[in-house]
Amino acid sequence: MPSIAPRDGVMPFAFGLLIAMATLFAQDKPAVPYPDGFRSWTHVKSLIVGPDHESFAKRGGIHHYYANDKAVAGYRTGTFPDGSIIVDEAVVTKDGEGRAQGLVLEGQRRFLDVMLKDSHRYASTGGWGYEHFEPDDTTGRLSGSDQATCSTCHAKAQTDHVFSRIRS
Amino acid sequence: MPSIAPRDGVMPFAFGLLIAMATLFAQDKPAVPYPDGFRSWTHVKSLIVGPDHESFAKRGGIHHYYANDKAVAGYRTGTFPDGSIIVDEAVVTKDGEGRAQGLVLEGQRRFLDVMLKDSHRYASTGGWGYEHFEPDDTTGRLSGSDQATCSTCHAKAQTDHVFSRIRS
Repeated sequence: MPSIAPRDGVMPFAFGLLIAMATLFAQDKPAVPYPDGFRSWTHVKSLIVGPDHESFAKRGGIHHYYANDKAVAGYRTGTFPDGSIIVDEAVVTKDGEGRAQGLVLEGQRRFLDVMLKDSHRYASTGGWGYEHFEPDDTTGRLSGSDQATCSTCHAKAQTDHVFSRIRS
Repeated sequence: MPSIAPRDGVMPFAFGLLIAMATLFAQDKPAVPYPDGFRSWTHVKSLIVGPDHESFAKRGGIHHYYANDKAVAGYRTGTFPDGSIIVDEAVVTKDGEGRAQGLVLEGQRRFLDVMLKDSHRYASTGGWGYEHFEPDDTTGRLSGSDQATCSTCHAKAQTDHVFSRIRS
């Protein structure tokens, strides 16, 4: 029966591999989980980022904002409870043709930007975590530095890092 | 004690008054009830009616479509059960200024158009009832003739009088 005792050099290598895998796993986990089912949440408002806006190249299109029930309560009261999630869904536009001439229609989804309130987990970024999902991606891609950039800008919002207001 | 027996001419007058009041009441009832709570229903899709569209004068602005749970099931299956309600909310647009230059923002609500599926009640208009609500109006205004006009056009839709399709 072969020995299963570690040999010199094998154990440190194994530990190193584990740590590397753990790091890889951590990088694959989004800063904020993918917001499953957000399309049935409450539609907060919409806006269109047009060609004359400075962010058009990266953010041009129709933006729909959605809130889960906790975030809806937050919009109403001005205090967002932990668990509040707000989704900014960007959708490219396409011009209608034929009988639809003069309509601006929705095309494919461009990305999702998501913010999740968790006062403890995201204490270093104002109590909100931030993530960005490309189409058909549920793993996210924001680094710690990216999230800090989101937070720095959102900290300028009047109400708890949230710029948008819900339309009645 | 005065007599309460009807005198000639009074009873026909009273009946006439009752009928007139009943007619008035019927006219004040919307063809389809106001869709209370629709802003928390599922957002189906949006489109923008621009200045080059033939309906711009009456319908220009951002249109948001909302569906109650039954209508969501209808979009998914292609068969809309009785009780399905679809709301077309029109909102005027306004151009962003200052830092919002290049954004198209939502202004005030312009109107709601609502359709409600009830195979029996609306049998004469393809199983769907139609109503139009001006802002801050919950009583509706469509005549029977108006509803027939809605129905004639909606009958051209591929799926059970519904033109819109839900975005995933």
